[in-house]
Amino acid sequence: MKAIDDLVRQPGAWLDVSGGAGAVVSSRVRLARNIDRRPFPGWAGEEESLRVWNEMTALLAGLPALNSHLVAEMPSLTRVDREVLVERHIISRELAEKNAGSGVVFRRDESISVMVNEEDHLRIQAMRPGLDLEGLWRTVDALDTEIERSVTYAFSPRLGYLTACPTNVGTGIRASVMMHLPGLVLMNEIGPVIKGIGKIGLAVRGLWGEGTEAAGNMFQLSNQTTLGEKEETLISRLAQIVTEVGEHEANARARMMQQKEASLRNHIGRAYGILMHAYMLSSKETLDMLSALRLGVEMELLGDWKVADVNALFLSVQPGHLQKAGGKAMGSDKRDFARARTVRERLAAIRSGRGGK
Amino acid sequence: MKAIDDLVRQPGAWLDVSGGAGAVVSSRVRLARNIDRRPFPGWAGEEESLRVWNEMTALLAGLPALNSHLVAEMPSLTRVDREVLVERHIISRELAEKNAGSGVVFRRDESISVMVNEEDHLRIQAMRPGLDLEGLWRTVDALDTEIERSVTYAFSPRLGYLTACPTNVGTGIRASVMMHLPGLVLMNEIGPVIKGIGKIGLAVRGLWGEGTEAAGNMFQLSNQTTLGEKEETLISRLAQIVTEVGEHEANARARMMQQKEASLRNHIGRAYGILMHAYMLSSKETLDMLSALRLGVEMELLGDWKVADVNALFLSVQPGHLQKAGGKAMGSDKRDFARARTVRERLAAIRSGRGGK
Repeated sequence: MKAIDDLVRQPGAWLDVSGGAGAVVSSRVRLARNIDRRPFPGWAGEEESLRVWNEMTALLAGLPALNSHLVAEMPSLTRVDREVLVERHIISRELAEKNAGSGVVFRRDESISVMVNEEDHLRIQAMRPGLDLEGLWRTVDALDTEIERSVTYAFSPRLGYLTACPTNVGTGIRASVMMHLPGLVLMNEIGPVIKGIGKIGLAVRGLWGEGTEAAGNMFQLSNQTTLGEKEETLISRLAQIVTEVGEHEANARARMMQQKEASLRNHIGRAYGILMHAYMLSSKETLDMLSALRLGVEMELLGDWKVADVNALFLSVQPGHLQKAGGKAMGSDKRDFARARTVRERLAAIRSGRGGK
Repeated sequence: MKAIDDLVRQPGAWLDVSGGAGAVVSSRVRLARNIDRRPFPGWAGEEESLRVWNEMTALLAGLPALNSHLVAEMPSLTRVDREVLVERHIISRELAEKNAGSGVVFRRDESISVMVNEEDHLRIQAMRPGLDLEGLWRTVDALDTEIERSVTYAFSPRLGYLTACPTNVGTGIRASVMMHLPGLVLMNEIGPVIKGIGKIGLAVRGLWGEGTEAAGNMFQLSNQTTLGEKEETLISRLAQIVTEVGEHEANARARMMQQKEASLRNHIGRAYGILMHAYMLSSKETLDMLSALRLGVEMELLGDWKVADVNALFLSVQPGHLQKAGGKAMGSDKRDFARARTVRERLAAIRSGRGGK
């Protein structure tokens, strides 16, 4: 799809390339909604799915909040296109597996996307760099209100919004914050932090990979409960925990600098050296080293490099983006080769633009 | 010892810095000799050892072959000085552990050294870059003849020269060649090669480390037998095997380039990147990466870098040399730090002199 080609040339809404730094990378809020008296997508046949798809895309296309948007039904997209949308967090991995009648309507600036016929009829989401859950909540709430003018939602006065999966019933809200936590990982303190967060009803998972094995030390914190509390309460509790985790991270970095500066510089220097000179790089290794680079930039151990340079690379090295940039589907070995070339060339270009490390 | 300070500023006799390349690094020939009717060093008391030391150093100092020489008795040397001499192959690790009456007389250009009261009264050795066992044999043979004008050697008409250890009895000769075999190691073919060499009565060991675990992929091939054959026969057989192993190595490198160029470039690039940017480097890791660098230079995968640049580093990163350069004894952690700094600075200086990789 031609529009996806254009997409990969822009930086992505959630990975700030304007220079945002620190533990918080980006925030996202999504609402799960279903149309009253219509079968959930998992129970609908193709005809019914297409009916919902046509009704919803017509409705969404007319909303001012979604001006300058793209509409993409899954069957119109190649495997690689779908992968690119997943990597950019515009669609979920589940939606990428769907067929006729499932798709997405999203703003070209990627700040808002609405998935149609994923697990629910509608998944309305907004994302942006940094910590701004309240702003995002206002955005999706407004969009939700606009949609509700034309659609009667499946709603129970007792339970709230009804959803395909019981974990979403109630507010149907999921708020999440992506955090970069290399300090806690390197100081072996991430385990207790994750455990502590779990105890107060929030979920933590690696953004790429699982649990404490998170590739690139990127973690996503989100609410677990959607029932029995107001959206504002859920959001402000998450924001508070994110702020606390950010303080733990800053503290871990400061102690690391005091207690093992040589080992920290070694970690960052090696990552830089390998990224600059390797000819094959796996996805996990690259994300881990980009994490070290991002840490090095933020701790001012890497000259005048900018966080924005590194952030953009986190996206470019993903399998879908690599294949899109290469203009063809590639197997794992070919991707490892293309990934190393991409990283080498980008870093060299940045370095020569800056006059060396 | 002041003279050792000067020594570390020169490149070392056996690691060619004039540009020699290929699998063969250097050759060495040594003879074990003992004085007739005098107890072997292991059985001599301090008084007897000192008598031998004084007689032998007086004799050796007067020989034309040893003009511009240094004399160093072990007790006059610090731990670090001894380590430097071991690393430069001027003395053995065994001699470095000895006390009063044991030491070495060696040419300042390091091409010839005579150890006194190591395991035998005299260990006469010559070394030089490349493969030249016959030339070295002529050198030590001539020196041996000169010494024999003043000394009656312990000699049995039936067995030949008598030595402290039975494995040296006969000719007392040990010829060895240092080979750099990264191609055979990377292609997993070093095991069978070592096994094959063992079967024909030669010994192979890692120069640093053991067996196939040789740090830096540096191997030493030497004769096992000293009895029942003429020196020339032993030497020419070793030279022939060295030539064959060199051909195997060249073959392995050519196949590696054909069959897995990307993986080869990856191996070399990563080594270069880590050496350029690490802040802590262990000895084993550094030697392994210098090996990759040497391979890269020889296979012309590293621009206009020269083998000589890399060869010199093999010596500079050894513990003794690092401590000598740092002007003080250092523990393992401090050495890892100093080693990384030395490598970074040297490579950066070479690169800037050459206008980049």
